[in-house]
Amino acid sequence: MGLIVQKFGGTSVADTAKIKNVAQAVIKEKLNGNNVIVVVSAMGHTTDNLLKLSKEITSNPSTREMDMLLSTGEQISMSLLAMAINEAGHSAVSLTGYQVGIKTENCHMCARIVDIETARVKKLLNEGKIVIVAGFQGVCEGNEITTLGRGGSDTTAVALACAFGADRCDIYSDVEGVYTADPRVIKTAKKLDKISYEEMLELARVGANVLHPRSVETAKPYKMPMRVRSSFKLDDLGTLIIGVEEMELNKPVTGFACDNSQIRIVICDVVDEPGNAAKLFNLLASKDLSVDMIIQSYARHSNNTNDIAFTIAKSDLDKFNSLKDDINNIVKASNILVDEDIAKVSIVGAGMIDRPGIAAKMFDTLATSNINIKMISTSEIKISCLVEKQYGELAAKVLCRAFDLDGAAIADVKGDLPD
Amino acid sequence: MGLIVQKFGGTSVADTAKIKNVAQAVIKEKLNGNNVIVVVSAMGHTTDNLLKLSKEITSNPSTREMDMLLSTGEQISMSLLAMAINEAGHSAVSLTGYQVGIKTENCHMCARIVDIETARVKKLLNEGKIVIVAGFQGVCEGNEITTLGRGGSDTTAVALACAFGADRCDIYSDVEGVYTADPRVIKTAKKLDKISYEEMLELARVGANVLHPRSVETAKPYKMPMRVRSSFKLDDLGTLIIGVEEMELNKPVTGFACDNSQIRIVICDVVDEPGNAAKLFNLLASKDLSVDMIIQSYARHSNNTNDIAFTIAKSDLDKFNSLKDDINNIVKASNILVDEDIAKVSIVGAGMIDRPGIAAKMFDTLATSNINIKMISTSEIKISCLVEKQYGELAAKVLCRAFDLDGAAIADVKGDLPD
Repeated sequence: MGLIVQKFGGTSVADTAKIKNVAQAVIKEKLNGNNVIVVVSAMGHTTDNLLKLSKEITSNPSTREMDMLLSTGEQISMSLLAMAINEAGHSAVSLTGYQVGIKTENCHMCARIVDIETARVKKLLNEGKIVIVAGFQGVCEGNEITTLGRGGSDTTAVALACAFGADRCDIYSDVEGVYTADPRVIKTAKKLDKISYEEMLELARVGANVLHPRSVETAKPYKMPMRVRSSFKLDDLGTLIIGVEEMELNKPVTGFACDNSQIRIVICDVVDEPGNAAKLFNLLASKDLSVDMIIQSYARHSNNTNDIAFTIAKSDLDKFNSLKDDINNIVKASNILVDEDIAKVSIVGAGMIDRPGIAAKMFDTLATSNINIKMISTSEIKISCLVEKQYGELAAKVLCRAFDLDGAAIADVKGDLPD
Repeated sequence: MGLIVQKFGGTSVADTAKIKNVAQAVIKEKLNGNNVIVVVSAMGHTTDNLLKLSKEITSNPSTREMDMLLSTGEQISMSLLAMAINEAGHSAVSLTGYQVGIKTENCHMCARIVDIETARVKKLLNEGKIVIVAGFQGVCEGNEITTLGRGGSDTTAVALACAFGADRCDIYSDVEGVYTADPRVIKTAKKLDKISYEEMLELARVGANVLHPRSVETAKPYKMPMRVRSSFKLDDLGTLIIGVEEMELNKPVTGFACDNSQIRIVICDVVDEPGNAAKLFNLLASKDLSVDMIIQSYARHSNNTNDIAFTIAKSDLDKFNSLKDDINNIVKASNILVDEDIAKVSIVGAGMIDRPGIAAKMFDTLATSNINIKMISTSEIKISCLVEKQYGELAAKVLCRAFDLDGAAIADVKGDLPD
């Protein structure tokens, strides 16, 4: 008898009609002859509503109490799902993170799972029960309730799949799979049947909002096969995520992504002394400010200074602004520029390893459309370029065409060509 | 240093503004130099909303999953209250029933508390923390979440007060105390400064919706002083509930209550055989149908039968109707009458013990107003009469006047005199 872990996101359990639909998806897998562990997120807007309540009380809540508050969301959806499965004639039991024994670090709102107890869930599965587990939550020392932070429910599902040696972990949401590009922008983007963990990680990091990279990182060392699929089209198998070694690499580029959520910062005329850059990024790191692309110009200015540019999330701008004085004290910059009108376009593909010329083709393609590249960053299987935001959509279309990601001649490239 | 347990009901924590108000009530007690344990109910309509969701899924939910669902309500309100207290500069920690160690029977939706662990709460109090505990919930074998059923949060508060040897248990709600009669009906009803557990129990049972009898029953053997007071008038001390031995009994009758939530059932012409009544009430008990007043007429009918009349809660009528065939099989009645137009009026007072004539005065008073008495039941400190519903209000007014419960000459007795 196989074991499948299924995870249903907030939109899949947004109301009781959708919860009944999820019950059918679970029962279908059970009737296939598999044991089933189900992980659920909170219903639709529950988490937002709870956050709103907390904000009405304080702008600076204790993270412990936030975990107490937010962990109720999954407890509501999982008990309702258990009722729906029971009502449909099958037997389900819901368990909180604590009741399963999902042990985490002693840390609130962003805890990592350190261990999962298996006894209770195994016993229930052996009794023929469908086990429903609250996503996003665990328990740390002293029976304190913790939550896992962003991507937490996906991570719970994958971690359970690994701990119980499941055959597969299915992540259900309102998207039908992983696409070569965002289908809302590139109408002819193709759904991928398969993608490797590595490629999925790069795509997730550069802004394809399908799956949180944390869950993929958890699956990768265990080679746990994952499926991204739609809870509204149960017969569609979605996209399988597996190890790169199990894939045939036909094409160098698998996917495209565009990220509009970043802003560029330029620290001008930093005095060129050893350690200045280290001091700067240590300061940012100490305030939990994640930096993505970084460029330090090698061309030293005549006054023995140079510029340092980097990108941060737009949502971190307030945090960054509060650090400006400290930054000036450290690096004695002449100016700090903030550029919000940027888009990061990326191509990803495990097949680009050892295939030179992919980067050159990307830069060429952009240049042919007169799109200026402001920054570049690369990994083994990814190339990202920062461009002006107004050209993000055009860049998407010309790059998808150039790297055969759109599956059809594109008729709808609009004439937003730059002057 | 003293220890006070405070309990705040659903209306007291109905929104975030009210939660901030509760935080002030808690801090006020802390600034009085006391340690404080706070018990909270779910916010306003949270429980109703959760029940609505479950009803959309099934009419017959598993009680285990209902407990999983409903116990989230208190977890939300307690974490928000902890944030509000922290925001006001004091230090609070919220704990679920499980985290405290409120052990209950292995039973869902109506579990009784069997033990309370004190170590964790004591440690937090010794650190100067205000401890907030989820009302209404506990944990049984296998770390299963249980709820305590009706009156559960009041009971949690009193049980904690007893377990920790508190100086007092304050029950805050939207009423200002215990009144001699319902102030919405008897405008001049007086708030009592003190009342005994025994009297409070009788008043609670006969329909004064101030306090659930279960909490009073829990307090009584421990002689735990309770206060019923308003969360919106913090300077008002409300009503103190203490042992009858600590009270001076000046008046034979302390309070009046009118209960409109019952209906009368008459089983006509039951064959007068030994055990017939026992069979009837065993059947009702086996279906969890609580019976209140019971009268079996001693006057045997000419055909060797007599009538059995009793009252049940109006909300149990459907359940009762489903039993009619079984009842007919058992007692072979000629007819079963249901009378929904009744009101139960009661007077309560520990002072009526050994004071004959109180019952006679009550019957006289009703007769003088031409109010017919349909059934009577009594305890040591209570006399209840069933009357036609249309005379309930008039009965309230004449009885309060007769037993000096209104504190003033009543000008507003309306002329609803019966023909």
